[in-house]
Amino acid sequence: SVPPGVLPLCHQLPAWGRAARHPQRPPQSPGLPLAPRRAFSNNKILVELDESSGVATMKFKSPPVNSLSLDFLTEFCISLEKLENDRACRGVILTSAVPKIFSSGLDITEMCGKSVEHYTEFWRAVQEMWLRLYGSNMVTVAAVNGSSPAGGCLIALSCDYRIMVENPKFSIGLNEAQLGIVAPFWFKDTFVNVVGQRVAESSLQLGSLHPAPQALKIGLVDELVPEEKLQEKAAAVMAQWLALPDHARQLTKSMMRKAVLDRLLAHREEDIQHFISFISKESIQKSLRMYMEMLKKKKS
Amino acid sequence: SVPPGVLPLCHQLPAWGRAARHPQRPPQSPGLPLAPRRAFSNNKILVELDESSGVATMKFKSPPVNSLSLDFLTEFCISLEKLENDRACRGVILTSAVPKIFSSGLDITEMCGKSVEHYTEFWRAVQEMWLRLYGSNMVTVAAVNGSSPAGGCLIALSCDYRIMVENPKFSIGLNEAQLGIVAPFWFKDTFVNVVGQRVAESSLQLGSLHPAPQALKIGLVDELVPEEKLQEKAAAVMAQWLALPDHARQLTKSMMRKAVLDRLLAHREEDIQHFISFISKESIQKSLRMYMEMLKKKKS
Amino acid sequence: SVPPGVLPLCHQLPAWGRAARHPQRPPQSPGLPLAPRRAFSNNKILVELDESSGVATMKFKSPPVNSLSLDFLTEFCISLEKLENDRACRGVILTSAVPKIFSSGLDITEMCGKSVEHYTEFWRAVQEMWLRLYGSNMVTVAAVNGSSPAGGCLIALSCDYRIMVENPKFSIGLNEAQLGIVAPFWFKDTFVNVVGQRVAESSLQLGSLHPAPQALKIGLVDELVPEEKLQEKAAAVMAQWLALPDHARQLTKSMMRKAVLDRLLAHREEDIQHFISFISKESIQKSLRMYMEMLKKKKS
Repeated sequence: SVPPGVLPLCHQLPAWGRAARHPQRPPQSPGLPLAPRRAFSNNKILVELDESSGVATMKFKSPPVNSLSLDFLTEFCISLEKLENDRACRGVILTSAVPKIFSSGLDITEMCGKSVEHYTEFWRAVQEMWLRLYGSNMVTVAAVNGSSPAGGCLIALSCDYRIMVENPKFSIGLNEAQLGIVAPFWFKDTFVNVVGQRVAESSLQLGSLHPAPQALKIGLVDELVPEEKLQEKAAAVMAQWLALPDHARQLTKSMMRKAVLDRLLAHREEDIQHFISFISKESIQKSLRMYMEMLKKKKS
Repeated sequence: SVPPGVLPLCHQLPAWGRAARHPQRPPQSPGLPLAPRRAFSNNKILVELDESSGVATMKFKSPPVNSLSLDFLTEFCISLEKLENDRACRGVILTSAVPKIFSSGLDITEMCGKSVEHYTEFWRAVQEMWLRLYGSNMVTVAAVNGSSPAGGCLIALSCDYRIMVENPKFSIGLNEAQLGIVAPFWFKDTFVNVVGQRVAESSLQLGSLHPAPQALKIGLVDELVPEEKLQEKAAAVMAQWLALPDHARQLTKSMMRKAVLDRLLAHREEDIQHFISFISKESIQKSLRMYMEMLKKKKS
Repeated sequence: SVPPGVLPLCHQLPAWGRAARHPQRPPQSPGLPLAPRRAFSNNKILVELDESSGVATMKFKSPPVNSLSLDFLTEFCISLEKLENDRACRGVILTSAVPKIFSSGLDITEMCGKSVEHYTEFWRAVQEMWLRLYGSNMVTVAAVNGSSPAGGCLIALSCDYRIMVENPKFSIGLNEAQLGIVAPFWFKDTFVNVVGQRVAESSLQLGSLHPAPQALKIGLVDELVPEEKLQEKAAAVMAQWLALPDHARQLTKSMMRKAVLDRLLAHREEDIQHFISFISKESIQKSLRMYMEMLKKKKS
């Protein structure tokens, strides 16, 4: 699936550092033949680009729960990178092809009983995903059509705008504390930027999963819509954002998010070491194994 | 209009650095003859000081739209400096004498087809205006009686309290991105201090102009009143703030705003260079020329 | 009352620095004899620990107004330290045994007509109280059953959750500016973390005391309940927080509060010097004396 040598390419400067290289994309030349929709299929994420609007959709299709495995993250980074470098693409809508779940967050199997090399590669891919998405030059809209705990919530938080299906059975939040683990500082920084310090303090300590109506109330999502209106609404919001000239919007976004992005860039290796030493603890490994066995029993 | 040599005086330490020099102003001696109102008229701003209350009003009267020209900014700084040093003055209400507009923001003619020296002088005056107003020892109340885009919004944001006429046709916001330009980092810092990071991110990227009711909802203004009640309300709010002892209030204000003021002071020359290199770009000059021609055609 | 030599023990590393030393407290061994309630009485604060739930209550009983004297602060630190080191204790509810008042804040008699040594000792104890409480590893819930100005408000702000009696006659806020004094920067930082920069700016400058309903509206307290439901509600909230594993919650709390705690730790001696030079001013001493005489007259 992923050709060897691709991932290292994925580990270059994050997108936000490249604003200067992409001054105001020129409008499509009207003389060119129209190629209205191009899809590059792969294993875990379906990417569709509508060249007439300049809007791509990244649809997570990794059943049962769109968990963020190393393969998923690698595909995510490559897909985003391709779109970022495609002059025909100005915005991305992130959504799920799996019913009832947006993404369940980091794949626990990647963190259980593996080598230090594997943990390093996995954590670097998690960082990379966030650096690229939070720092993307494109307009990013999360169309949250299912539950979105932990890393799934991080993906939504990293977008410019969050629309969620108004079903109160769907919930969203950084619930790491419920599993006995601690959200990394850059998850926390991203969360505080969205909901503020007070709400973040209690929500992170309690590992709260907020049902959609509550998520709206605390500002964790920007609006709720009925499920059948979600894609239409996401397209309308995207059109509103794309009405602005790209260059000024990109520089503005970079200015707003730079401090938080720089913090991870400055402490990236420490953050990896911290993850490894935490995840390698026997007590943590034991709880993850128990949690996985519980999930297996649930399935059967 | 402005005597030569006055502007340099205007470029000294910002007011917030002077708190220690103005310990608790003594109350007016009751034996002195009352001089209830003094007005010092000038070209662009009408300043009236009511010595009995200690409240001055700065009324912008630079038709058609109170744009922030170099002359306007220079008068603004001089007027504010005079009031700051006048023991009879403890608070200032900022409002407009021009119907339907508070201030349209920076004067585009100052940024179009001029010399580097001119750009330098202009940008320094914009910085100076903000440093003096945001760091003022006086209580500052914005009585926003008209639309207030870009630099006009910055003036309102820099006050201690914002009252706006409840007319939904009047809007306020940092709409720089709509013109293809980027709000400076200290505009952004001031905005984030008022509305928080989440609202600031989308509002700045979209260059949103918020109609009065929405401005209230996001906390961009503190209250709305009918137009005929505006001055009365501003006076009442001012009286409430002036009921507090000056010295403690001034030190508190300085403590709250110091971090953001210090950031511009530490990067002032870089900020000027950044403005010059941006505004000197042919692409930017071209869009400003087009924008100005559009405005001219509108008039005729 | 306080044995000599105890206070220095109280001046060690604040609790937040010790997270690593207290990994996940083991559940009580079921074979041990039950000691369901232990009370260690002292002069100013009644401490009760319910070992079955792991919840302690610290009840302020220093009439007439639970003012934060040096004795009160010393007891507060010692009590909190004991609970912090007691494996049977996982959470603390702070409340008042004095009707209508939670705590009136710093004891003015400690700041009036005393020696520099006394001011130093007093201010260090105020800092210590905040460092221990804001950085506590335990879950801390404020059950605010009366008015809570200044230092009383700081105690509530430093907890994880604030429940207040819904009586609009009870108010809460950092009203230092009303007395002509300035809240220290770490009072301000704690306040901003709870209500945000905009609300903090006006509230601190005006020295506002917010009646309970308004306190709820601005997020200064998390919920209001009828007086007779307060302790029950505090216990229910505590149980919800204690349902989470301690270790992850403690590390999360430390991550959220570290920046603000570190700021005082880095400037602790300067902050003491600043307090001494401020409080030693004749003008400040004079207003405090006048204020105390006013209070005495009120009583008689």
